Amino acid sequence: MTDPLRTGATIGILGGGQLGRMLSVAASRLGFRTCIFEPGADCPAAHVADRHIAAPYEDEGALRIFAQACDVITYEFENIPTSALDILETLRPVYPGRQALRVSQDRLVEKAFLNDLGLKTAPFAAVDDGVDITEAMAEIGLPAILKTRRFGYDGKGQVRLKGPNDAEAALADMGGAPAIYEGFVDFTHEVSVIAARNAAGDVAAFDPGQNVHKDGILRTTTVPARLSPAQRSDAVLLAAQILNKLDYVGVMGVELFVTAEGLIVNEIAPRVHNSGHWTQNGCTVDQFEQHIRAVAGWPLGDGKRHSNVVMENLIGDDMDRVPDLARDGACALHLYGKAEVKPGRKMGHVNRVTGPA
Amino acid sequence: MTDPLRTGATIGILGGGQLGRMLSVAASRLGFRTCIFEPGADCPAAHVADRHIAAPYEDEGALRIFAQACDVITYEFENIPTSALDILETLRPVYPGRQALRVSQDRLVEKAFLNDLGLKTAPFAAVDDGVDITEAMAEIGLPAILKTRRFGYDGKGQVRLKGPNDAEAALADMGGAPAIYEGFVDFTHEVSVIAARNAAGDVAAFDPGQNVHKDGILRTTTVPARLSPAQRSDAVLLAAQILNKLDYVGVMGVELFVTAEGLIVNEIAPRVHNSGHWTQNGCTVDQFEQHIRAVAGWPLGDGKRHSNVVMENLIGDDMDRVPDLARDGACALHLYGKAEVKPGRKMGHVNRVTGPA
Repeated sequence: MTDPLRTGATIGILGGGQLGRMLSVAASRLGFRTCIFEPGADCPAAHVADRHIAAPYEDEGALRIFAQACDVITYEFENIPTSALDILETLRPVYPGRQALRVSQDRLVEKAFLNDLGLKTAPFAAVDDGVDITEAMAEIGLPAILKTRRFGYDGKGQVRLKGPNDAEAALADMGGAPAIYEGFVDFTHEVSVIAARNAAGDVAAFDPGQNVHKDGILRTTTVPARLSPAQRSDAVLLAAQILNKLDYVGVMGVELFVTAEGLIVNEIAPRVHNSGHWTQNGCTVDQFEQHIRAVAGWPLGDGKRHSNVVMENLIGDDMDRVPDLARDGACALHLYGKAEVKPGRKMGHVNRVTGPA
Repeated sequence: MTDPLRTGATIGILGGGQLGRMLSVAASRLGFRTCIFEPGADCPAAHVADRHIAAPYEDEGALRIFAQACDVITYEFENIPTSALDILETLRPVYPGRQALRVSQDRLVEKAFLNDLGLKTAPFAAVDDGVDITEAMAEIGLPAILKTRRFGYDGKGQVRLKGPNDAEAALADMGGAPAIYEGFVDFTHEVSVIAARNAAGDVAAFDPGQNVHKDGILRTTTVPARLSPAQRSDAVLLAAQILNKLDYVGVMGVELFVTAEGLIVNEIAPRVHNSGHWTQNGCTVDQFEQHIRAVAGWPLGDGKRHSNVVMENLIGDDMDRVPDLARDGACALHLYGKAEVKPGRKMGHVNRVTGPA
């Protein structure tokens, strides 16, 4: 375990989107500088970072310059090329560590890991070809979802299967990539736990939030979530179990289905998470600062919630609502400074404070 | 009145210290970029800004480049050279406007302005020489304070006078600069109101905070302040009166002495103010975002307080307490990323959340 980073140190962030942007702002609150590694020339995180290295993730020279400019390295997305990590890890500490990435980069490995921990997931099977999908359908049943094992996000790389006739098209949609067949889970709603662990092994979790998705993209997160006290405690404990098993350092998002038979883990994300954005206006220390604290070797904030919040993503044309939202005294706007509005593009979010906790 | 700034626009900030840093972070929340104009090569605000122009305030070419890079210009300190404003004003809107600067750059003009508004100040007299100071002493009495009319901050350029014999040394301390003699005010405590006004003429004030100074430097601000409901309302109303009279756009700090005879205005600052830092953890929209909203032509946040807070400045060696403060779940740290710790230097502040409002 290394010493806590001193004020003035530089935190490297792989990825320059809105998560990197808000991580950079949180780092500044603790007196840190940030250096963003992101191929895109103009990216949301670069606007609020001390330095931006714009190079492909395959550029070994740029990766070395980046590592040497930083005291510690973290990331805003889990699909970092392994080759980049191979270089960076030899030069600087990278948090969260390799094991968390290995598990979360592959849906099949992730589900197996969770089951090994004794945690429930949807029934699943590996699918590489037509034989596999037929077997999976027979064993697990329908409806189901076929997903690429790797590189999926916001509903991309996913196809629903309603009947046997959907198999061929779904498989074609995977484009030859290894896939996972996931059985139907009869859940009433979805919640997520944003939890953090630091190098000292301390764990702190924020209150679970209740998520609503549309077209595979998160629309709203509401705290408090509709959960019994027992469910609430189960949710936090299982998140802690995952973090501890991975010897995790940083913030993780754990998505859970609430079912009559208990909580089922949907997926884990080894990073700050869209469903944790409410913490910016609900807690004294938000998920972004919590992550920075963890990777900087600092004590964690306690995660206590002072306010009830409904977080809503502003996607594409939702930006037209900004003038009205700005007039609403209960609303805190968080816009990402993206130049171009595109359908389905996350442009910002709004935290509506609905009352004291 | 101009249209509200659209997301992606650039806000120029004169001055690159901690106030510029926190303004820049607030601007990013609303999707704006910032460009900092600050002579120092490495400054706190530049770490979180999109661009930094490092040039003297007398560099006309640099000022023009700065203005052209920005959609609107604001500042973190009131002692901007008039010559710089002359150039910038021809190119871009500058908020708060010239009148506020003219009034607040000169303590004598400021007090006369406040009295003209019907607001009470300490008794005062202009002092340029030995004759003036003798007359002021006879008229206003002792104890008193002699201050430079311009360019004072954090207790600098101020000398206390306890007896007639202090006059000569005090005058020498002014170094020939025009001065103001301020009579003693018998106050029980000091409070400040952080108020904002936008171009539409809307005014919003945060709850008054109670300030404790030491050696001329603010140490703590506590909300709620010890005030009767009538005093609270008086404080907010007089701040609004000042803003309206100046046709002000932005956030202003108004320092008040609480006396048996009512509230007396100590001084006004045409910018975000150290005594408003508590709003970062006490309100949904803090003073920095409120200022950005005002200068961007946006609606103001409502300024409502969700938590009670004690803000404490971390000055010089107070930084040694950071590890302990980081472990305290009630504390939100805000560090400025200044490389060198110096005695009397503001290195950061901590907002201790003491409970729901």
